[in-house]
Amino acid sequence: MNVLVLHGPNLNLLGTREPHIYGTMTLEEINARLEEWAAAHGVTLRIIQSNHEGVLIDAIHQARGWADAILINPGALHIYGYALREALAAVNLPAVEVHLSNVHAREEWRRLSVIAPVCKGVIQGFGWRSYLLGLEALYALHQERAAQGRA
Amino acid sequence: MNVLVLHGPNLNLLGTREPHIYGTMTLEEINARLEEWAAAHGVTLRIIQSNHEGVLIDAIHQARGWADAILINPGALHIYGYALREALAAVNLPAVEVHLSNVHAREEWRRLSVIAPVCKGVIQGFGWRSYLLGLEALYALHQERAAQGRA
Amino acid sequence: MNVLVLHGPNLNLLGTREPHIYGTMTLEEINARLEEWAAAHGVTLRIIQSNHEGVLIDAIHQARGWADAILINPGALHIYGYALREALAAVNLPAVEVHLSNVHAREEWRRLSVIAPVCKGVIQGFGWRSYLLGLEALYALHQERAAQGRA
Amino acid sequence: MNVLVLHGPNLNLLGTREPHIYGTMTLEEINARLEEWAAAHGVTLRIIQSNHEGVLIDAIHQARGWADAILINPGALHIYGYALREALAAVNLPAVEVHLSNVHAREEWRRLSVIAPVCKGVIQGFGWRSYLLGLEALYALHQERAAQGRA
Amino acid sequence: MNVLVLHGPNLNLLGTREPHIYGTMTLEEINARLEEWAAAHGVTLRIIQSNHEGVLIDAIHQARGWADAILINPGALHIYGYALREALAAVNLPAVEVHLSNVHAREEWRRLSVIAPVCKGVIQGFGWRSYLLGLEALYALHQERAAQGRA
Amino acid sequence: MNVLVLHGPNLNLLGTREPHIYGTMTLEEINARLEEWAAAHGVTLRIIQSNHEGVLIDAIHQARGWADAILINPGALHIYGYALREALAAVNLPAVEVHLSNVHAREEWRRLSVIAPVCKGVIQGFGWRSYLLGLEALYALHQERAAQGRA
Amino acid sequence: MNVLVLHGPNLNLLGTREPHIYGTMTLEEINARLEEWAAAHGVTLRIIQSNHEGVLIDAIHQARGWADAILINPGALHIYGYALREALAAVNLPAVEVHLSNVHAREEWRRLSVIAPVCKGVIQGFGWRSYLLGLEALYALHQERAAQGRA
Amino acid sequence: MNVLVLHGPNLNLLGTREPHIYGTMTLEEINARLEEWAAAHGVTLRIIQSNHEGVLIDAIHQARGWADAILINPGALHIYGYALREALAAVNLPAVEVHLSNVHAREEWRRLSVIAPVCKGVIQGFGWRSYLLGLEALYALHQERAAQGRA
Amino acid sequence: MNVLVLHGPNLNLLGTREPHIYGTMTLEEINARLEEWAAAHGVTLRIIQSNHEGVLIDAIHQARGWADAILINPGALHIYGYALREALAAVNLPAVEVHLSNVHAREEWRRLSVIAPVCKGVIQGFGWRSYLLGLEALYALHQERAAQGRA
Amino acid sequence: MNVLVLHGPNLNLLGTREPHIYGTMTLEEINARLEEWAAAHGVTLRIIQSNHEGVLIDAIHQARGWADAILINPGALHIYGYALREALAAVNLPAVEVHLSNVHAREEWRRLSVIAPVCKGVIQGFGWRSYLLGLEALYALHQERAAQGRA
Amino acid sequence: MNVLVLHGPNLNLLGTREPHIYGTMTLEEINARLEEWAAAHGVTLRIIQSNHEGVLIDAIHQARGWADAILINPGALHIYGYALREALAAVNLPAVEVHLSNVHAREEWRRLSVIAPVCKGVIQGFGWRSYLLGLEALYALHQERAAQGRA
Amino acid sequence: MNVLVLHGPNLNLLGTREPHIYGTMTLEEINARLEEWAAAHGVTLRIIQSNHEGVLIDAIHQARGWADAILINPGALHIYGYALREALAAVNLPAVEVHLSNVHAREEWRRLSVIAPVCKGVIQGFGWRSYLLGLEALYALHQERAAQGRA
Repeated sequence: MNVLVLHGPNLNLLGTREPHIYGTMTLEEINARLEEWAAAHGVTLRIIQSNHEGVLIDAIHQARGWADAILINPGALHIYGYALREALAAVNLPAVEVHLSNVHAREEWRRLSVIAPVCKGVIQGFGWRSYLLGLEALYALHQERAAQGRA
Repeated sequence: MNVLVLHGPNLNLLGTREPHIYGTMTLEEINARLEEWAAAHGVTLRIIQSNHEGVLIDAIHQARGWADAILINPGALHIYGYALREALAAVNLPAVEVHLSNVHAREEWRRLSVIAPVCKGVIQGFGWRSYLLGLEALYALHQERAAQGRA
Repeated sequence: MNVLVLHGPNLNLLGTREPHIYGTMTLEEINARLEEWAAAHGVTLRIIQSNHEGVLIDAIHQARGWADAILINPGALHIYGYALREALAAVNLPAVEVHLSNVHAREEWRRLSVIAPVCKGVIQGFGWRSYLLGLEALYALHQERAAQGRA
Repeated sequence: MNVLVLHGPNLNLLGTREPHIYGTMTLEEINARLEEWAAAHGVTLRIIQSNHEGVLIDAIHQARGWADAILINPGALHIYGYALREALAAVNLPAVEVHLSNVHAREEWRRLSVIAPVCKGVIQGFGWRSYLLGLEALYALHQERAAQGRA
Repeated sequence: MNVLVLHGPNLNLLGTREPHIYGTMTLEEINARLEEWAAAHGVTLRIIQSNHEGVLIDAIHQARGWADAILINPGALHIYGYALREALAAVNLPAVEVHLSNVHAREEWRRLSVIAPVCKGVIQGFGWRSYLLGLEALYALHQERAAQGRA
Repeated sequence: MNVLVLHGPNLNLLGTREPHIYGTMTLEEINARLEEWAAAHGVTLRIIQSNHEGVLIDAIHQARGWADAILINPGALHIYGYALREALAAVNLPAVEVHLSNVHAREEWRRLSVIAPVCKGVIQGFGWRSYLLGLEALYALHQERAAQGRA
Repeated sequence: MNVLVLHGPNLNLLGTREPHIYGTMTLEEINARLEEWAAAHGVTLRIIQSNHEGVLIDAIHQARGWADAILINPGALHIYGYALREALAAVNLPAVEVHLSNVHAREEWRRLSVIAPVCKGVIQGFGWRSYLLGLEALYALHQERAAQGRA
Repeated sequence: MNVLVLHGPNLNLLGTREPHIYGTMTLEEINARLEEWAAAHGVTLRIIQSNHEGVLIDAIHQARGWADAILINPGALHIYGYALREALAAVNLPAVEVHLSNVHAREEWRRLSVIAPVCKGVIQGFGWRSYLLGLEALYALHQERAAQGRA
Repeated sequence: MNVLVLHGPNLNLLGTREPHIYGTMTLEEINARLEEWAAAHGVTLRIIQSNHEGVLIDAIHQARGWADAILINPGALHIYGYALREALAAVNLPAVEVHLSNVHAREEWRRLSVIAPVCKGVIQGFGWRSYLLGLEALYALHQERAAQGRA
Repeated sequence: MNVLVLHGPNLNLLGTREPHIYGTMTLEEINARLEEWAAAHGVTLRIIQSNHEGVLIDAIHQARGWADAILINPGALHIYGYALREALAAVNLPAVEVHLSNVHAREEWRRLSVIAPVCKGVIQGFGWRSYLLGLEALYALHQERAAQGRA
Repeated sequence: MNVLVLHGPNLNLLGTREPHIYGTMTLEEINARLEEWAAAHGVTLRIIQSNHEGVLIDAIHQARGWADAILINPGALHIYGYALREALAAVNLPAVEVHLSNVHAREEWRRLSVIAPVCKGVIQGFGWRSYLLGLEALYALHQERAAQGRA
Repeated sequence: MNVLVLHGPNLNLLGTREPHIYGTMTLEEINARLEEWAAAHGVTLRIIQSNHEGVLIDAIHQARGWADAILINPGALHIYGYALREALAAVNLPAVEVHLSNVHAREEWRRLSVIAPVCKGVIQGFGWRSYLLGLEALYALHQERAAQGRA
């Protein structure tokens, strides 16, 4: 199973940026944990972080044919990234949107994600574990579909 | 670790109700899977389903002193259950809101939960697995706090 | 033909409550007229009044397998009773929402019912006759389907 | 008893227009059923269909002195026909608004009728039977008033 | 000086329609008073009442070349008659919108006129005198322009 | 007949202030024309201009017992002067709101006056003539009431 | 004088729940103070707390014939409890809504109560004293009416 | 191929009406150009202009069976002509909405057309050429379908 | 204890102004009752009424150093008096907002006070007694703080 | 004549992306058809596709001095691409916005384009032909201006 | 160069009022710094503080003929002071609005100033330095115009 | 002192783009003036212009450790650049937002900046001087902090 992991704008600063909101773990550490879990489950990850919406879209396009699923933390692009949304809708792969913080407990304008409606599901509020739970969810769905395919 | 699991209105019909949206697994089967996971991890569950907001509030109140966390699928009460929200805020236990379907991919008025702002996090869109992921998340947070307590 | 008749909150006060809006006939008298009409047409009624949204939802659930249709005056729950709405949607029986008064001629916030979108139709403004017309409508639809079934 | 029956814009296409929404019965057939019921109850109907709001208003004006009640399906004019509304308010006759479909189960902007607040009641969602139920309602109200007058 | 006087929908019922709002004077009586004033000031009136927006628009078009000004009570078309508004804008004659009642003291949705922005001014709340004041205003503006033309 | 004439904030600058909107006539000239008309009709005027809402309210209070009517151009206070509105409502004298410009042809936020709902009527768009027409209207209403009183 | 005192959802937790907002006095202590005051003034109290909107409605219905007034802290039901509101409107007894905290100094969505429009008055922000002030107010109104009755 | 060409309210004034917005070409000239193009491509046009929404609806109804497509400039009816919209939806012919001006560069309330959602496409901003481009588009679609039919 | 009592615009007319809303007691009588209560409790009052927002603000500023609390009926300034609000926030004294009528039972736009969020609490709907209850509340809070200070 | 043709985000996926909405023709095929038409009319095209808003803006800037017109399908950037809009406004070249689908027949939030107000016109709903019609429109406008320049 | 410096409501309390928001410098100290700068640059200041909107308006009117520019901190009047705005618009002098705090980082309703649209520019967030920067800006603009006048 | 100066989209066109709004000075000239001022005050500038939001974010990230402050004109990104906002919030350096024009005097949708709430202050409306004033403000704040550090 191949999974594209996308980190949106400013997530490269994790660990140093507003730690009372986003925690003290760096993006490298999060990626390491994801890689560890993936290796243990026979999952290959392609991990990309960018502050450019266009780079994220390009990455989604390029994942076609290779990826079985997408795990995405869109950062602040969840508020206005309609082009990113369209990219996810276009490639038609199961995607999960994750957030480190619970956006519902913050400012009102953060609550509605333009990305969420084209995703399979949403997980938020668990810090770096949001990523891990999202990866587990995608993996379980994949296993289930594979089992159905064999049946 | 003790966890109160709350199923809101109409979830007793799971498996028979609009299966194209909510899946074919019954509430009993979901509960069985949660119990299985809980048993394997030394977690005790108290599971309650009710179509009465007041019963859910009473259950939250009664869980004080016993429960370490709350896993709740509020059903349609996520749209207007402000009293339920206040109950969660009042007992001040880590709570996770789960939904079977991805409410963001449905009608606009379903998207904003009045429960979410007083929860630790939100997980939605993964059918019965939303519950399991929520339980895992609560467990991991509990382990982490316990580890910090020992340190 | 079996019909579940549901009277929502405060309708037990009919005849004594704000008679300039709701008329002087008591709920017992309305029920008697409905029973009379039902008896004459071979229809069995199960009539329930409750001030508890949860009780109404329970009643809808319990009607599965028995009822062919639902006649409901949700009272003020038509403004916020999303759980009641989901119950009606879940059992998937033809339902008719009735109101004694014409809510469109009253305060603006009374006009949009959250129940109406999951009903077959809506009848309002005719006092106790709203119920009778609703029962007639459900009966006619039932007859029509039965005729189609025989054809 | 004399009743003015008004069919608003596009209702002349009934039976051929979007039958999945509006049914397969033509306007002539609906009128025939109304006439049949009216004849059986000693009610005289004057039936008018027009795609012109002005014609409908003229008809309402001309009904003064003759009509005892008005049965109106305003078609899409229920969304913006304020002049039609004022005509109904001006002649001060009991009116019932009917719709073939349940507008609450369709687009949001269809839900609020500018006509409804000046009507005695509203009936919608029962196809051609909405008209018949509306006629019955007006008849019953008329009988009741007559009985009161005799008393 | 030539003035087109337009009475919109339902104004033909004046004197009989909701006299507590619109007064007891009939449209004929109002017209007579306007004609009297006009005759005394050398003004020629062309007076048209219609319940059809299209007829009012046609009248405005036909007034081009003849009329020096337009006095219009659009009735309920002031709420939605954008085509009527465009007609007034197109012929580019000084127009005054009048209303018998003070629409600001009634329902909120009556307050904003789509006609008003293309008029010279608005007069409302003085019953039949709103028309007379409007005619005076148009006359005074006309005299002023004529005086400027002579200078 | 006694009339209180109130000019709100900034109207003292008339003639020099934005003449393309408000004309070139000064407030003194407008007052002179009003006095001239009043003298000719046996009307006594008390004219007050102030840039202070409180002064206008005091003036309205002090007019009780003396004034038969109020002519008021509230200036920009028509947008937010709720205390001024309450003063007019409290003294319960017939009042007319006038504006030099047609506020409906300007910015959207100028259109709704908080003063208008407690006035008898509104006249706007005719420059200084708005005042004169307002005075005429108040005079005519006064004559009418006097005639009714004599009858 | 008989007064029904109603405590809505979550108020049973008073003293332990978010004391920085709601204070440290328990519901029992508040009730004791109310009973003390009532005893001193010859007032009989019936005190009910419930987390079920339906129970509160039932209590209001049952108070008919016994109670002279209602003192109610609706808790979070003030945001959406339209059925509770209708119950108060139906029994037509003088009611006072009280809140421990000043809801205007908290989140925006807490500010508008659906209960308040059917109450005699509202008191909020004084902790447990809000109840006492509300009871005093009801008592004074009752004395006044009684005095008028004797006159 | 047969095309119904509809010109809505006020378009008969083209060439004389606000030429800075709508250009100097008259409706006759536009029609001539359309006829010329149609003749060259074997297309028959039926051209109707009316200031009456009802007449436009009647024309659409009458075009059934004859027309293969509809080209419509609804004029200001695009803002509120829901009955016109329903007529287009009812006859179910490919329609194109055209506007002379780019409504998006004008007032905000002009931007959303109630007609557009039931059309195949929209063309605006090109003066008389909007019509010609619309006709070309309908023709191309027709050719394509014909080619598919032959295949 | 020293209390500044502020009466906002139009309250000087109490007793004569709209008595069906505001009662028949004059401001002097209300002040006398407040003085009486204050004298009995060792409280000194400084009472000011003004129709000028600026005067009220000046009074609040001047009360610094002298007043222990502020009792304010802002009149209609509760709708827009942001400068008054800032004055209360700036002097940082416990304040109570009172209203004679229950603003929630009147027009929608009266319901939200800009003053309330900077007050300790709000009391409304009890006529002149709203003031007395507010004074009692301020007194009780003062006693409590004094008791704490002594402890 | 030189025309810059811009394809916004995700349009590189055309032909494979959601073909029920966007058709089966690839971007290369569309470009080929545009080139063919351009060659036949002596028009030079510069065609750019990018998923980066910044690249599109850079391209617009660089087209200054070379391009006579711009043909742009902004993709989802039409919803939020204000910087793209400013780029078009800044270079002040005639631009046409095209869309493959009729955005008015899709979700509400797609309907208003931030790009449209700075364009000459808008064409949407005709699949790849939207581009061709847009190119024709730009060409015709260019020819017209050239003809005027020669005159 | 002559500059009118206006301080709106509550600014007289500076230094003592909410110092965490507005700083500890008194208004006198700010004025001293402005005078110092002005003296050094040959600028004459007229400084006025008032809690009365009317006084500020009067001051603006009286500055005509003397002042070359206006520096204004409207205090809370920036939220609703439309009369103050009209005064600035009427005298047509270059004005700069300053705020001590950055209103965008505070409550939502503080963000939009009704004064700003009639000003040359806005400076906020720099405490007392906002005034100084505003004065510099007005001075530079004045120098520039003077230089252009000489050229 | 080190300052990062950021120019957002389209600002590279300054001097040629809409000079009636943005002035005739080029970005190079503005930068030269800023450099001149900086050199005179011992301030080092790093100046970056980009039409890519991502490039601006990258620049902010890279400035960490070097820059003491940020001066930013976000161009149209102030309307939707939430990712840019988060970058500023993440690096936690004092920032000032500047605009050449006074956005409050332009279209309504330009008025609220998503950047402003995370800035120290905002300066707008003074053309190129907005930058200079912003630089002065940052410098003064820096000096002040340095002075406090030495104390």
